[in-house]
Amino acid sequence: MVEEIMSGDFPVSEFETRLQKAHEIMQTAGVDALFFTSEAEIRYFTGFRTLFWQSPTRPWFLVIPKGQKPVAVAPEIGGALMRQTWLDDVRSWSSPHATDDGVSLLTDTLKSCATVGLLMGRETALRMPLLDFFNLQQNLPHTSFVDVTPQIQRLRMVKSPAEIQVIEQICGITSTSFENAANLFHIGMPLDDAFRAFRMDLLKNGADDVPYLVGGAGQNGYADVISPPSKTPLREEDILMLDTGATLKGYYCDFDRNYAFGSASDTAKSAYQTLISATKAAFDKARPGIRCKDLHAIMQDVIGQGSSDVGRYGHGLGMQLTEAPSLIDFDERVLEENMVMTLEPSLSLGNGKIMVHEENILIQDGAPRFLSRPAPEELPIIG
Amino acid sequence: MVEEIMSGDFPVSEFETRLQKAHEIMQTAGVDALFFTSEAEIRYFTGFRTLFWQSPTRPWFLVIPKGQKPVAVAPEIGGALMRQTWLDDVRSWSSPHATDDGVSLLTDTLKSCATVGLLMGRETALRMPLLDFFNLQQNLPHTSFVDVTPQIQRLRMVKSPAEIQVIEQICGITSTSFENAANLFHIGMPLDDAFRAFRMDLLKNGADDVPYLVGGAGQNGYADVISPPSKTPLREEDILMLDTGATLKGYYCDFDRNYAFGSASDTAKSAYQTLISATKAAFDKARPGIRCKDLHAIMQDVIGQGSSDVGRYGHGLGMQLTEAPSLIDFDERVLEENMVMTLEPSLSLGNGKIMVHEENILIQDGAPRFLSRPAPEELPIIG
Repeated sequence: MVEEIMSGDFPVSEFETRLQKAHEIMQTAGVDALFFTSEAEIRYFTGFRTLFWQSPTRPWFLVIPKGQKPVAVAPEIGGALMRQTWLDDVRSWSSPHATDDGVSLLTDTLKSCATVGLLMGRETALRMPLLDFFNLQQNLPHTSFVDVTPQIQRLRMVKSPAEIQVIEQICGITSTSFENAANLFHIGMPLDDAFRAFRMDLLKNGADDVPYLVGGAGQNGYADVISPPSKTPLREEDILMLDTGATLKGYYCDFDRNYAFGSASDTAKSAYQTLISATKAAFDKARPGIRCKDLHAIMQDVIGQGSSDVGRYGHGLGMQLTEAPSLIDFDERVLEENMVMTLEPSLSLGNGKIMVHEENILIQDGAPRFLSRPAPEELPIIG
Repeated sequence: MVEEIMSGDFPVSEFETRLQKAHEIMQTAGVDALFFTSEAEIRYFTGFRTLFWQSPTRPWFLVIPKGQKPVAVAPEIGGALMRQTWLDDVRSWSSPHATDDGVSLLTDTLKSCATVGLLMGRETALRMPLLDFFNLQQNLPHTSFVDVTPQIQRLRMVKSPAEIQVIEQICGITSTSFENAANLFHIGMPLDDAFRAFRMDLLKNGADDVPYLVGGAGQNGYADVISPPSKTPLREEDILMLDTGATLKGYYCDFDRNYAFGSASDTAKSAYQTLISATKAAFDKARPGIRCKDLHAIMQDVIGQGSSDVGRYGHGLGMQLTEAPSLIDFDERVLEENMVMTLEPSLSLGNGKIMVHEENILIQDGAPRFLSRPAPEELPIIG
């Protein structure tokens, strides 16, 4: 057996396929180059993976010229790692730089392009100093910069078998930790200790990292779904919710679980079952061809008047915790085979409390498949 | 004793002080409002802390009108948490939105301003869709947007006693884990398992999170300082370097440690001692009034011709892993009392290998203080 040549976490063939699709996008959109500044897209086309993006000091650029392999324009501190990818052309400068943090090098790389496509739309941000982008535009007075967000989102939405395998692995690791909840959490435990115990269990089970762990705990529900933990101890009749974005090779899972402590009120039990029913209803209809807004409506029908302010009931998932598309009432996009989605209905319980539930699924030809091992049908009670 | 009212992790008085300094900046810069889109600045002025920034889906905005308290323009999913901060005015919309993801609300909030200051310079990025920013500019044809990066960086560079206390705590936690290295790492251990064991030890010792953990291992040094771990087992004569950005209450430490396994070559021992000497030389001169470029030169003198491609020998530290200023040959800024800095000299060992060393210090009136417990004077050998 011949071992495949890797670029970062995947074989080079994976990146060749992605590049080919990028070339098709450029052809259709009539652009001479694609230009990226963001972690996810640069990794998507190169395999370059590092946590160094946590440092805001240096910009990173990737240019895909029409019909050619990507060209990295990268700070020298990342040059060695970038040269280990499948790219042939890595242009580096010593960064930070007193006067020119890669702008001249980038100008030179883009100078023959009449039209450059970049991400300017929903869910995107330009990761470079705005003044440097304006300088780039001034350096290239004959170049138009146009938005290619919908096309790049569409490309990234549909996952390859290799991507699906990694996402399924991290979903499995997180399912194992959730199934261990009764050993990890107990009444009287401060919430921040519960979070810490859960993070450690995820790492023990094989997660690389846990970049996202939020949740809440409270009597008969919780106030929001994005808070860091307080030091308040878990009490009888509390509902604990943990929403987890653990990663493996830079790919996320994103699902949550609810647990009651000691006992649960009928209100809480019933809300939980409504959310399970909404998830099931969506799962049953999640097929290639259905629109995101229709899947949203199916969950909305089950939830009825009790919907929360969260606004959407699921989204794409992959190299980012949340990706396009959105299961929301205005998203007209159609599910396709090999999209990885979250189903995430939420419910207002009154008194400012809410409950959420979330699973991760794979859209297939035919019935979908759970990547997270589905939550119990009834609200689990600990202790 | 009257308990202070908190906004997130700090008393309201902390935010009143920060706001007052922001008002002074606005006065001097002649701007009618400050406008922020980024996690660090929004948290700096509100106390709003969440890992939800991991999701790129929704933009978040903060406006500080001249002489007034900050106004948050925030997606409804974060409304409840934002309303727990010291702010009086939180304007929300249901996001994602089909056609208007906060732009009208933001336009309305900024409409009376002739000049708006925002971050457009070095080490910054605008965290909102570029098309939405262009729409905002079109909605406000009589408003000038001007860069206030240097002023906001200068404000954030000098830490309060409360900030210093948190940074010192997380530095202490990480020091304890590094001092436990001989129990955590051993020859034959795959590098990714070593990383995982170190993350778990940091959490066990009280870290909230470990957003940044990179490093390398290899015979007599490592190839770069930003890589994720491979599965290669640690070998006799390997040097292992772990560079750690663990967090507590959203504040980072950022320092590394080197370990040799079994034995170390004279080259490795000598490189290590050069780095320790460079750090000491900089520590001895790190006082209010010295320029960053001069502190860089002091380390460069010790290192001599062997400098690496990393480019700078330290930086500010706080809510972000790396903050202004930079210890680099062009940074003219002057150290001030209560700045938290890293000292981070690096050395090329030839054959593409490098060695780095890093400590975290507090600039004080008089001699500085180590926040990380300083590394041993000689390269520690495990096993």
